[in-house]
Amino acid sequence: MNNADFLKVKSIREDFPILSQNVNGNPLVYFDNAATTQRPNKVLKAVEDYYKGFNANPHRGAHSLSIKSTEIYEGAREKVRKFINAKSTTEIIFTKNTTESLNLLAYSYGLNFLKEGDEILISIAEHHSNLIPWQQIAMIKGLKLKYIYLDEEGRIEKEKLEKALSENTKIVSIAQMNNTLGIINDLEYIVEAAHKVGAIAIVDGAQSVPHMKVDVQKINADFFAFSAHKMLGPMGIGVLYGKKEILEKMPPFLFGGDMIEYVWEQKTTFAELPYKFEAGTQNVEGAAGLSAAIDYIENIGFDFIEGVEKELTEYALKGIDEIPYIELYGPKNTINRGGVISFNVKDAHPHDVATILDSYGIAIRAGHHCAQPFMKYMNLNSTCRMSFYFYNTKEEIDIFLDRIKNVRRWLGYGS
Amino acid sequence: MNNADFLKVKSIREDFPILSQNVNGNPLVYFDNAATTQRPNKVLKAVEDYYKGFNANPHRGAHSLSIKSTEIYEGAREKVRKFINAKSTTEIIFTKNTTESLNLLAYSYGLNFLKEGDEILISIAEHHSNLIPWQQIAMIKGLKLKYIYLDEEGRIEKEKLEKALSENTKIVSIAQMNNTLGIINDLEYIVEAAHKVGAIAIVDGAQSVPHMKVDVQKINADFFAFSAHKMLGPMGIGVLYGKKEILEKMPPFLFGGDMIEYVWEQKTTFAELPYKFEAGTQNVEGAAGLSAAIDYIENIGFDFIEGVEKELTEYALKGIDEIPYIELYGPKNTINRGGVISFNVKDAHPHDVATILDSYGIAIRAGHHCAQPFMKYMNLNSTCRMSFYFYNTKEEIDIFLDRIKNVRRWLGYGS
Repeated sequence: MNNADFLKVKSIREDFPILSQNVNGNPLVYFDNAATTQRPNKVLKAVEDYYKGFNANPHRGAHSLSIKSTEIYEGAREKVRKFINAKSTTEIIFTKNTTESLNLLAYSYGLNFLKEGDEILISIAEHHSNLIPWQQIAMIKGLKLKYIYLDEEGRIEKEKLEKALSENTKIVSIAQMNNTLGIINDLEYIVEAAHKVGAIAIVDGAQSVPHMKVDVQKINADFFAFSAHKMLGPMGIGVLYGKKEILEKMPPFLFGGDMIEYVWEQKTTFAELPYKFEAGTQNVEGAAGLSAAIDYIENIGFDFIEGVEKELTEYALKGIDEIPYIELYGPKNTINRGGVISFNVKDAHPHDVATILDSYGIAIRAGHHCAQPFMKYMNLNSTCRMSFYFYNTKEEIDIFLDRIKNVRRWLGYGS
Repeated sequence: MNNADFLKVKSIREDFPILSQNVNGNPLVYFDNAATTQRPNKVLKAVEDYYKGFNANPHRGAHSLSIKSTEIYEGAREKVRKFINAKSTTEIIFTKNTTESLNLLAYSYGLNFLKEGDEILISIAEHHSNLIPWQQIAMIKGLKLKYIYLDEEGRIEKEKLEKALSENTKIVSIAQMNNTLGIINDLEYIVEAAHKVGAIAIVDGAQSVPHMKVDVQKINADFFAFSAHKMLGPMGIGVLYGKKEILEKMPPFLFGGDMIEYVWEQKTTFAELPYKFEAGTQNVEGAAGLSAAIDYIENIGFDFIEGVEKELTEYALKGIDEIPYIELYGPKNTINRGGVISFNVKDAHPHDVATILDSYGIAIRAGHHCAQPFMKYMNLNSTCRMSFYFYNTKEEIDIFLDRIKNVRRWLGYGS
């Protein structure tokens, strides 16, 4: 990292109040960004400003606060549209999180447009949120849920993908960036292959959107889902992008206020896109916060974000690889992989590792990372996972590398 | 209002930064509380403190921030439990809003436990969120959606209720407080009548929980739904209370992370209550804010809240009733009614009325209030609706009563 970048990260860290906290008597080292990121002051201020100046229930309000709330909410939608380069704001649906976005697709598209014998294809490395909805509708509708298994690094092989696809494949749903190993999939290829057999392509973008420039038109997926809280925004708001022509023919998922055209006692006609999919009072504070988060990320720039994360990941991989009793999973390089590293310390349970590191103020995650079938596929029960964002530093990795050496000593194995 | 109460309201208003804002050059008079309430500083601070000190993804985290986040989230659940006097925190499910809570029931209970010919009974005055989910599953499953029609004031008559119930009735779903006219229904009677025929009883508590002490055990409903944002809390978080024995037999609604026990490629076993119904990253900031909102409300006390609202409603009803060209809907007294008043100004469209009042800084709502079948039943297209909370004052009602007299003059009808 050159000196200018070093100073930039130093200055960025001052925008995140939590990063200067002490945890268990040590400065916080937050390496759990794949679970949730931290929020900069500007996001907190956007939420506070909303409540102090403009809060009201948006849409159909004829008073100034309600109109202003609508502007904030719809302004956030336009900001999201531009951020992922969707054609139109009618293609941007606000949900509560990625999980709801994917469930919306399983219920609205899966239950209504798929029939017995149809196939859904996902990879064995998918997060539970991109697995269980498909598995459950498959059970209800007599569909077949098929898995793409992976190469030794954890990557999707083109041959296996093509072999798994058939004219029965109706949905292909894949994460752009895997949440356990950080692998970035070649989506443009996968989407094209899905389309070739007439399937729709769905992308779980929860892990990718915060870390790399996403262009949904370039990817050409039919749907793309992500959450605000993994990209500096508030919890409680997520996004589903969908191609207008498909969204238009889909029935609504949640029913209630604000998603209707006209309601009779025994039937209802529904509102235009995107409102058809947004029932009840929406999370306007969440939209305000997400909007500020996008501003913050765009101001930093993805070149910088990817550069910092690549450097951190390389540095950490190198350091970890030198420790003989650590087993690394996934690629040992930074080619098409994000800043997520899974590993285990020999003879130590991941939860013990995480707990001991926590005593030094280091926050990593331990567990199955909501990917139990993938764990089983890798012959593992759980791993330790560290995940970076652009506010992390090499110095924090040095602290980690130093403290991790104490783990085995703590557990009585010597160093 | 005695002098002590007057001073208390004055002091309360200082806790709400937005209430001292000017709107269109006039002090804000916020009478749109049935749509959403405003947030006191303590709620904003709870959210800010969460992000500045404790933010992480809760559950299964082995680091301090995650453990603290879990404590905050589960602490909010216990606070909600106590607030509505549920037996156990396993009966408190966090959703994104009342609408999701009711959709969860329609999908999980309605689609799975009802069969062709079964009947669902609601009142004609229900909000769309307690109407369309039932209507839509009725269409899918061949169920019959029946309506209880109302007396002239808009109240449910016991005879009509009993006549509408039969051994085919499987679900009765009614709002505790109606959102258009503010009528408070005799829930204990309705729930008992539903149970007598073997139906489950569901309560839409969105409008009641903020304004009156709710005891779910006393009401004895099987399910009870409400939202945080109508009771000083953040947007993006709601609650579904359900009796444990029924929730236990219901299948999950949304599928994803954190709601599982074990996931295989082709099947999944699910977590215990309440986690079974909480898929994906939950809204911890929302839970922190809701918790602070409950503290705030309990500190004010429902005796005070009900007293202020009753006094305001009586005062407004009296003032409005004296204006010859205003038509009031619903009861003209405060017996079993909350602080919600629907009216129209003769020859004026409700949207014009709201817009003109807005120019004086007065925020009311105009429209169908997400109750189109009820509007039709009342032979109306839309109404003006003013709705109070404990931070409103008689002085604000005086401003309203004065400015409403200008509406007809503005519209060219003379005064």
